[in-house]
Amino acid sequence: MFYDVDLHSRLMLGTAQYPSPAVLAAAIEASGAEVITVSLRREGAAGQAFRDLLRQSGRRILPNTAGCHTAREAVTTAQMARELFGTRWIKLEVIGHADTLQPDPFALLEAARILCAEGFEVFPYTTEDLILGERLIEAGCRVLMPWGAPIGSGQGLRHEEALRSYRAHFAGVPVVIDAGIGAPSQAARAMEMGFDAVLLNTAVARATDPVAMARAFGTAIAAGRMAFEAGLMPRRDMAVASTPALGLADLGPADLGEALA
Amino acid sequence: MFYDVDLHSRLMLGTAQYPSPAVLAAAIEASGAEVITVSLRREGAAGQAFRDLLRQSGRRILPNTAGCHTAREAVTTAQMARELFGTRWIKLEVIGHADTLQPDPFALLEAARILCAEGFEVFPYTTEDLILGERLIEAGCRVLMPWGAPIGSGQGLRHEEALRSYRAHFAGVPVVIDAGIGAPSQAARAMEMGFDAVLLNTAVARATDPVAMARAFGTAIAAGRMAFEAGLMPRRDMAVASTPALGLADLGPADLGEALA
Amino acid sequence: MFYDVDLHSRLMLGTAQYPSPAVLAAAIEASGAEVITVSLRREGAAGQAFRDLLRQSGRRILPNTAGCHTAREAVTTAQMARELFGTRWIKLEVIGHADTLQPDPFALLEAARILCAEGFEVFPYTTEDLILGERLIEAGCRVLMPWGAPIGSGQGLRHEEALRSYRAHFAGVPVVIDAGIGAPSQAARAMEMGFDAVLLNTAVARATDPVAMARAFGTAIAAGRMAFEAGLMPRRDMAVASTPALGLADLGPADLGEALA
Amino acid sequence: MFYDVDLHSRLMLGTAQYPSPAVLAAAIEASGAEVITVSLRREGAAGQAFRDLLRQSGRRILPNTAGCHTAREAVTTAQMARELFGTRWIKLEVIGHADTLQPDPFALLEAARILCAEGFEVFPYTTEDLILGERLIEAGCRVLMPWGAPIGSGQGLRHEEALRSYRAHFAGVPVVIDAGIGAPSQAARAMEMGFDAVLLNTAVARATDPVAMARAFGTAIAAGRMAFEAGLMPRRDMAVASTPALGLADLGPADLGEALA
Repeated sequence: MFYDVDLHSRLMLGTAQYPSPAVLAAAIEASGAEVITVSLRREGAAGQAFRDLLRQSGRRILPNTAGCHTAREAVTTAQMARELFGTRWIKLEVIGHADTLQPDPFALLEAARILCAEGFEVFPYTTEDLILGERLIEAGCRVLMPWGAPIGSGQGLRHEEALRSYRAHFAGVPVVIDAGIGAPSQAARAMEMGFDAVLLNTAVARATDPVAMARAFGTAIAAGRMAFEAGLMPRRDMAVASTPALGLADLGPADLGEALA
Repeated sequence: MFYDVDLHSRLMLGTAQYPSPAVLAAAIEASGAEVITVSLRREGAAGQAFRDLLRQSGRRILPNTAGCHTAREAVTTAQMARELFGTRWIKLEVIGHADTLQPDPFALLEAARILCAEGFEVFPYTTEDLILGERLIEAGCRVLMPWGAPIGSGQGLRHEEALRSYRAHFAGVPVVIDAGIGAPSQAARAMEMGFDAVLLNTAVARATDPVAMARAFGTAIAAGRMAFEAGLMPRRDMAVASTPALGLADLGPADLGEALA
Repeated sequence: MFYDVDLHSRLMLGTAQYPSPAVLAAAIEASGAEVITVSLRREGAAGQAFRDLLRQSGRRILPNTAGCHTAREAVTTAQMARELFGTRWIKLEVIGHADTLQPDPFALLEAARILCAEGFEVFPYTTEDLILGERLIEAGCRVLMPWGAPIGSGQGLRHEEALRSYRAHFAGVPVVIDAGIGAPSQAARAMEMGFDAVLLNTAVARATDPVAMARAFGTAIAAGRMAFEAGLMPRRDMAVASTPALGLADLGPADLGEALA
Repeated sequence: MFYDVDLHSRLMLGTAQYPSPAVLAAAIEASGAEVITVSLRREGAAGQAFRDLLRQSGRRILPNTAGCHTAREAVTTAQMARELFGTRWIKLEVIGHADTLQPDPFALLEAARILCAEGFEVFPYTTEDLILGERLIEAGCRVLMPWGAPIGSGQGLRHEEALRSYRAHFAGVPVVIDAGIGAPSQAARAMEMGFDAVLLNTAVARATDPVAMARAFGTAIAAGRMAFEAGLMPRRDMAVASTPALGLADLGPADLGEALA
């Protein structure tokens, strides 16, 4: 449940960097995503056509404040987004550093406080810092979106141990891995760890075949969630000799537990 | 193509350690696997019932020599398997070390030579050693099955860089990751790296819900293959600032390449 | 240069958790550390004896605010430390989370601002967050102390890639790795990456032989710094065939570049 | 003890790829290594001068068969080395693959058998394969030299978990990490894991300042051994709250175990 909205697909898809609008539309369709994000930068004359395309997809739109570097910029952008898209949802990005595109924890928190107070339903793009996460919740956020790795890097879950702590610490809060995912296996891993969804863009838009990659991500995320619910085996340090050390000479009746792979 | 047989599913499933025959049958069905492996140890009175169950699954059977520690044991077991299952296929395991369950490269090669000469179609469970792989091919093997990690450990692709070299070195040979896979995301990763299939057992059989986990693996492996074919984005060391540094004040018309995730 | 003080040793040593005062004194001696940290908690009757022991070591004392969870607690503790130890140096810890012992970025920054304004020379225990680092410098800190891993965990440089970015980003600032170091090889690695010093405690105090381990750390840190200055070879993805492919038959005169290891 | 020879330094240094003979001589001196390896390729007219240089170093010489690709080549080269250097020691390399420079396990074992039978004291460059290690010992080897990573790659201990198994499995045998070490911290890590020595070449010869790097390696290896003997603290998954949760108000007398780092 993301702000009282129940979603079947756990993939949220970005809409930038696609080779063409037609490819974007087909990728959205193939992905199965029910939520798509869009940058406010698209508005104006060209923006209208683009907005129509997104509306025709029938997906729920999550506008974002990509490219904002201050709380004030982000708040203004969010307000414009609410007007244009008629939604209280906002993916809040306040970039703090040009190389890593990491969020600015201070400006992010400030903007989150303002927007929550104005009735927005904020999806904050954040680091894996636990304290920052707590402050965002205190500010009124009911979803958290920690990064997997720097935006566009495709590194996957760079700090897996820290993210595991994050998941455990915010057990009752919907947590979405946002940014850094480069391959479906990484998205599946996030789901196996119990995260609630994955948001990505570059890995689909910059694939050789974005439509097929969108389908691959949708499928892998479903598989990862299935695995989480099915209960993964524990990792072991050494091999487990699952075949009992019987003589092979007689090959007599044996129980179900003997072979291995 | 595995010995001239074309398979749609790239999952090969082991049949040991399941809580019951009914769960095994349901897991095979849910996995979509077209190949199932079985240990010779099951034969005898109980073996007949088990063999019937496997036949009723309609899957292609790949008998294995699990639990053999010498070339001679393995060859004898393979010969019995051919009689019982009426197939030339044999998954050749010659265990060299009790703790890691690693193959014995010397005994493996010796057994492979004998079996290939006798007309078997050998699927050798091997390490990621390139030279051993070359010798196995010289011996007549037309498939290679390097381990991902020690059997039953669930560690995934423990030596990913070495496995990447392996995949590249044997570009024209079907290569199956066998053993050590603990989660669907790891199986998807193997597919993204271009391996032809994954063989696993413990991760399904020992899941809390084996049937659901079988489905998760089948789905994840399909997704990983889709991703391989769709062309993954390159991994980058740093973030990629996909939003151009425009002023936000005007928010004028912009091209398709600006937002990010 | 740490606040205009030039140090020869790049090891800073904690003074807690040792089996006895005598072992602590011997460990300080063996380590070669010129800076030792001490928690304010030691004060009172027993504190006087402990303080005398530290003074007799002849080392520069860096009091810390370990155990403080709010900016106010930390500021008060720092003020007491200045009285007791007669130094403006303070290692500022404001713990934000009981399990990971991570710093609270907001309270840390608040306390740093207050203490810098009061003339303290602050050594802030921080995460690897670049923005927080920038704010600490704006607050007046002239040293940064990012964690290697959670305190006492012995995991080493858990987020090595992020720490490499950190080092590069704060090129002109003395940066000390503080917390999480469990082995001399990890401390050497930090030095090879160009960090200016390492602060640690548990790995020495909880070693089987703390005095010998103190010497091992002092030696390894010196070696790591030597290596940094000597210019490490680049890491390569593949092997480098340093022996030219000559026939071995003649074994004629050859240049210096042929053998390998 | 390496074939009944007791060494103080646990660094074995290669002699190839140095910018000049003078730098090589100075690097040997600075490293403290008591054993140096040399390729047979150096012989002939130039070889005599080079041999004299090595003799003048006063170090024990370990000739190697670098560049050999068959057992026969390696055996012949070893026999020549015995003549030229008057030693039964031989570092046995039989390269199996041009890209990874991995040893050929089959040719290596064959050559080891022949050389041990001829009275050589063989130091085999091998993979981390446990079975191959056992066969080499059966052949008469009393030292094992598994690779850390592909030769010249500088990747360090690429398969650390497998090497840990290797160390435990051959508990009573001197084991030397040979190849792939790129930094002193990696060599120190090998020593902390209980390996008996490290052999390297490229990381020193190709450093910006080879003499300083030789000293750094000698120092780091000594530190790593010290740490192994001093008993490392165990790695922990989470932070350990080493400061008891006392109120800070009174700051009363406290035991030695409270502070942290």
